[in-house]
Amino acid sequence: MRVRHKPWAKEKIEQYPQFVIPNPQDYKGKWTDLFGNDKPLHIEVGTGKGQFISEMARVHPDINYIGIELQQSVIVTALDKVIEADVPNVKLLHTDGADLRNFFSQGDVARVYLNFSDPWPKNRHEKRRLTHHSFLKIYEEILGDQGEIHFKTDNRGLFEYSLVSFSHYGMKLNGVWLDLHDSDYEGNIMTEYEEKFTAKGHPIYRCEVQFTD
Amino acid sequence: MRVRHKPWAKEKIEQYPQFVIPNPQDYKGKWTDLFGNDKPLHIEVGTGKGQFISEMARVHPDINYIGIELQQSVIVTALDKVIEADVPNVKLLHTDGADLRNFFSQGDVARVYLNFSDPWPKNRHEKRRLTHHSFLKIYEEILGDQGEIHFKTDNRGLFEYSLVSFSHYGMKLNGVWLDLHDSDYEGNIMTEYEEKFTAKGHPIYRCEVQFTD
Repeated sequence: MRVRHKPWAKEKIEQYPQFVIPNPQDYKGKWTDLFGNDKPLHIEVGTGKGQFISEMARVHPDINYIGIELQQSVIVTALDKVIEADVPNVKLLHTDGADLRNFFSQGDVARVYLNFSDPWPKNRHEKRRLTHHSFLKIYEEILGDQGEIHFKTDNRGLFEYSLVSFSHYGMKLNGVWLDLHDSDYEGNIMTEYEEKFTAKGHPIYRCEVQFTD
Repeated sequence: MRVRHKPWAKEKIEQYPQFVIPNPQDYKGKWTDLFGNDKPLHIEVGTGKGQFISEMARVHPDINYIGIELQQSVIVTALDKVIEADVPNVKLLHTDGADLRNFFSQGDVARVYLNFSDPWPKNRHEKRRLTHHSFLKIYEEILGDQGEIHFKTDNRGLFEYSLVSFSHYGMKLNGVWLDLHDSDYEGNIMTEYEEKFTAKGHPIYRCEVQFTD
């Protein structure tokens, strides 16, 4: 996502340390301390403008959520959504998906959401795709046993690539939807991007995959 | 496929024992005897009107092909295509996919094609789908090591079901195309059904999966 530079974003993020956690490395292995309970933790890697994660937190009070976003000018919009949601079970991290192991120990996370990740369509950028095996290795190292990835995208090429990548990593495919908005799937929470894209009538692809022992 | 009854079909099939093999059980474990060479054998389960298998045989002289079709009134059309193709590397079997182990030993077959199989959309008919695990077991028992299934369909529900079924069986997904006719896939041979369906602009789904040790 290419976004307008927002010089005031850094300052605003620093004003809300209760929402955008400034010291995530301190909670590695003990996120239950931060949330004050031991509910399962689901994270979204590349949380964008935050509609998905804040809405999920509102709908599922029994789950803790963390949205992770690298771009300062984007996470500041997610911050607005989290402030507005006004629920205790959603936090944000201003960091890179590649650094997750600095902040999460094995088993800290029960599920990873990937929503409309950058497709990086050129072959030479394959390693940047969030479903490349090097990222799957990272997710595997922070997820618990049988940890899941729930992935959706409108990008056909990325979805095709990802299904093969998951399979070659030895993951199990538990569900796949090739036109999410024309299916019996219930409880879908749309991202900002998804709302815009769906209005054009194009299909949304979705799958649920799981690491196996 | 619901088809017109053709009372003359039986007789015609019997007239061409060199194309519709009348005694396939005799070749179990020794199909190389029938073809007179040891080229790899690819079979199509549910070969329908035979355009795919006869055209594949024409294009790939280094592969032997067998098309399998249960319906007499359909295989008789496939027979016409095979007569017309006039190549030595394609034969037909008038039998049921469930009986494959009667005619093929482990390793006789290198690849199974499933094209536009009946979707059997009702849950209670799941067992009839040619990608149900009971059929995967049959294919596994006649295929050699690392044997492959190449599957295409226009039916979204069947494709979704099949991807999950392959994965839960422990198969590896080597390639997936979610809009075959709008992709970089080369060498696609269309079935009669595919030609008709594609003209309507709907996507064709395709995948290549492989049994693992």
